[in-house]
This record gives sequence, C-alpha cells and structure tokens, in this order.
Amino acid sequence: MVRHLEYPKKPQNTVKRYNNRGTYDLGIIHSIINATSVLHVSFAPSPEQPFPAILPMIGVMGSFEYPSSSIEEPLDCYLHGYVSSRIMRQARESPNGLPICVAATKVDGLVLSLTPNSHSYNYRSAVLQGYAKPVETDEEKLYAMRLITNKVVDGRWEHTRVPPDNVEMTSTTILRVKVETGSGKIRQGGPHDEAKDENRSDITEKVWTGVVPVYEAFDTPIPSATNKVKDLPPYLDSYVSETNNLNRESALHAVKDP
Amino acid sequence: MVRHLEYPKKPQNTVKRYNNRGTYDLGIIHSIINATSVLHVSFAPSPEQPFPAILPMIGVMGSFEYPSSSIEEPLDCYLHGYVSSRIMRQARESPNGLPICVAATKVDGLVLSLTPNSHSYNYRSAVLQGYAKPVETDEEKLYAMRLITNKVVDGRWEHTRVPPDNVEMTSTTILRVKVETGSGKIRQGGPHDEAKDENRSDITEKVWTGVVPVYEAFDTPIPSATNKVKDLPPYLDSYVSETNNLNRESALHAVKDP
Repeated sequence: MVRHLEYPKKPQNTVKRYNNRGTYDLGIIHSIINATSVLHVSFAPSPEQPFPAILPMIGVMGSFEYPSSSIEEPLDCYLHGYVSSRIMRQARESPNGLPICVAATKVDGLVLSLTPNSHSYNYRSAVLQGYAKPVETDEEKLYAMRLITNKVVDGRWEHTRVPPDNVEMTSTTILRVKVETGSGKIRQGGPHDEAKDENRSDITEKVWTGVVPVYEAFDTPIPSATNKVKDLPPYLDSYVSETNNLNRESALHAVKDP
Repeated sequence: MVRHLEYPKKPQNTVKRYNNRGTYDLGIIHSIINATSVLHVSFAPSPEQPFPAILPMIGVMGSFEYPSSSIEEPLDCYLHGYVSSRIMRQARESPNGLPICVAATKVDGLVLSLTPNSHSYNYRSAVLQGYAKPVETDEEKLYAMRLITNKVVDGRWEHTRVPPDNVEMTSTTILRVKVETGSGKIRQGGPHDEAKDENRSDITEKVWTGVVPVYEAFDTPIPSATNKVKDLPPYLDSYVSETNNLNRESALHAVKDP
C-alpha cells in the first residue's frame, strides 16, 4: 500500500473553483515546483506599501536535514538570490521568517472549444505558503546551491569549477522556506462544450475544436566566444534531448482525458 | 524623434540589482505582459492572513477608453476570472480597487558559465502594480473578453460562437487594473566569467560554456473527439507556425550580446 502525504487544507489553500482539479499531494506539488524554470515569489514589502511584491526566482525542493528524502516526503523550498536584495534583507530581519507565497505554473496546452467561455489551458500549477529564512551554515548553503544548479541542468554542478570561493559564498543568499501549506491544480484533457453549442451544426461545422500542445523547448546549445570545450559534453547533450522529449510527452499526454 | 513613455520610478519598482538590465519603458513592459501565457497575480487575502496569495491568471493590456492606443501608450491590464473567486470578491468590496501586483516572466535561455555563481538565465520579466476593479459594463467586458481570447490565439474570437450569452456574461468577471507603476528587467547575451576562472586553463579546458536557448513551443494541434472541421483553419495553422518561429527567434536573438 502506498501512503500519500498531503498538505493540510486551510482556508487559504483550499481549491474551490474546479475543486476536482485540486490536489494536496506532496509529491505532485513538489514535482511541479521542481519542473518550473522560474518561480514567482510574493511577499509584503513594508507596512506603508499597499502592493505586494513579486520576484521571479529560481528554487528547488530539498531537505538538508534528511537529504535522502524522496519528492513525496516533507521538504523545504530553497530559493536563490543576491545577498543585499530586499527580500533577503526582510527575511534576515524577521525573527520567525518572512511569510511568503511561492507559485509555479506550467502551461501544457491551449484548449480550444466552440465558444470563448469554455476555452482553457491544460496546466499544472502549485502554490506553497511558508516562512523564509536565510540559510546560515556553509554546509547547508552548498547543499542548496548544488540542488539549484543541478535543477537548471542535471549534473552541471559536478562539471563546473566548484566549490564557490569565499566571495561567491558571501555574495549569495539562499532562503529556506519552511512550508506551512500548499496546493496544486491540474487541468488535462480536451475541450468540454455544452449541449447548447454542440447540438447546433451551424456552429460545429464552422469552429475547429481541440488542443494545441504547449511545452518549454530547448534549442541546440550555442557555445560562448570563449568556450574551449570542442564537443558538447554528453551530460549536457543528453539533458537537452531528454528534457525536450519529456516536456513534449507531458504536453501530449495532457491532451488525453485523465 | 520618438518619445518613449516610462513608468514613474518609485521605491517599490526601482530596479537595484543589475540595474543596467532594468527598464521602465511602457512599450517593452506591455509587450512582455502580452507575450506571457500565464500572469502571476498577487494580493493580500485578509488582514489576519500572514501570507500573500498568488493566482495564475490570463491577462492582456488594453484601453477601452482609447481602443486605438498603441502598445507604447498608457494602458490598463485586463485579467480574466470566475465571478465568485476570492480575488473578484475582494476587488468588488474594495471601493478604491484591490491593490495587486501582476508579474510576467519569459525564460529565453540557460546561461552556462565556468562556475555556478555566474550561471544565469536569459529572460524578460515585467511587473505591474495597480488597483483592480471589476469591469461593470457589458461593452467593456466584451472588449476585454475579445482581447483575452485573441491573446491566446490571434483571431480565435472571430472564429468561435460569439457573443457570449447571458449566463456566460454573468459567470465571468473581468478585472481592470489601473496601473500605478511598473518595471521590466531583461537579460541577454552569453555567459560572463571572471578573469580568475578564465585564466585557468585547467578550468576552461574542462567546462563547456554557452547558452541553451529556451522557448515556448506549440506542437501540432490535436482535434477533439467531437471536432467536425476537417482541416486545421488557416488562421490557427499560421498562428501556431508563426508563434513557434517568433518564440524561437527571440530565444536565439537573446544569445547575441545586446
């Protein structure tokens, strides 16, 4: 028997609209976060400022305390940033951590129905809410930096000049988000039209319905002007082609009704 | 002479880190918003709730008052949502509009340097802050619905069953965001390494450096089970191929140092 861990349903994370698309499964939510190139991170910048701030950041799920944890287990979210940025300063100044919201969304398809009202995207989205604090020890920082680098290109950390030197370590701040709760939402399948339109042949004979699959694609890597490595290394070559296949397959798979 | 309009620089939108990448140009910022499939919208859900909320939403820039405005001119941001969702309820209950933040980010490439510390993305990002209110007249609602549908697929509105009927009009809420301020940030070019690494042949001979171009790709459209239109309509066929070309060219163009 497989036991799935779920985030607690609280007023702020309970999916109401299309709640059949909602999920609280840790593994699914963490996987969406890890598959998204850019996370959008929101926080309240200051009491006199009416608008929340949003920063695009790179982040990944992990556990320094239990590094062998699987994606389905309780994990922290590590976010990468520059030492003197506002979010880092506020996180340092918040004794209990800065309350933040982390969002990840991947579009898998344009869902085109008979009428604009029923149009949709196929998508996977995840939101985490938690308290962010700067990582303090070099050991945990290195653990998170490696995870973040290898999220961008699997195996990249091991194929670059590491470890970071003192200047690099001090200029980078890593935030550790202790997750309070989270939720995900997934939409798959084709368009769903209503009988009022489907029964009218003047409409159905005129309007094409279906899905345009959407995915993030990598093009052929372009070496820099100063690059000295003649051939594309195998780890990078296979990462590019495997990610392209995986992303495309996800988009095509999403078209099939679940 | 071309006059470029800029958003006012306020404490909350002034780009500090890598400020040479910052822009306040209306045309550039509006174009990033319009080119992004999913916007991330943040707001404060309630006074007793410490965490800001983030919603993935579809949105587009436009002006009902001056519909012939170009992308470089002052515009509102229209966001599409369901009538009873929390953000819509709060916007209706806020006499001056709900203070929100709208973020759009497009990744154009993975920038791989000699050391993880200098790794980066090529990207275009934009943030708007403003006050959101529900659109009240059917005329403005229809104007915004058409813009939003045609943002997803150019010309789609005109090729579907329109106008929306009464049920569809009342189940949809469109938010109009009066933009207070905004900013953008763009990173282009190849990796920038430091002399300390570039002068060491043991590193440069081992580490591949360059850019992996990244773009949002459309796959061949897949008709639904109930689709009656035999051939893919020309407007949709050309939208798919033109968007693919444009997105790929943007990613490749971004690799060249500006």
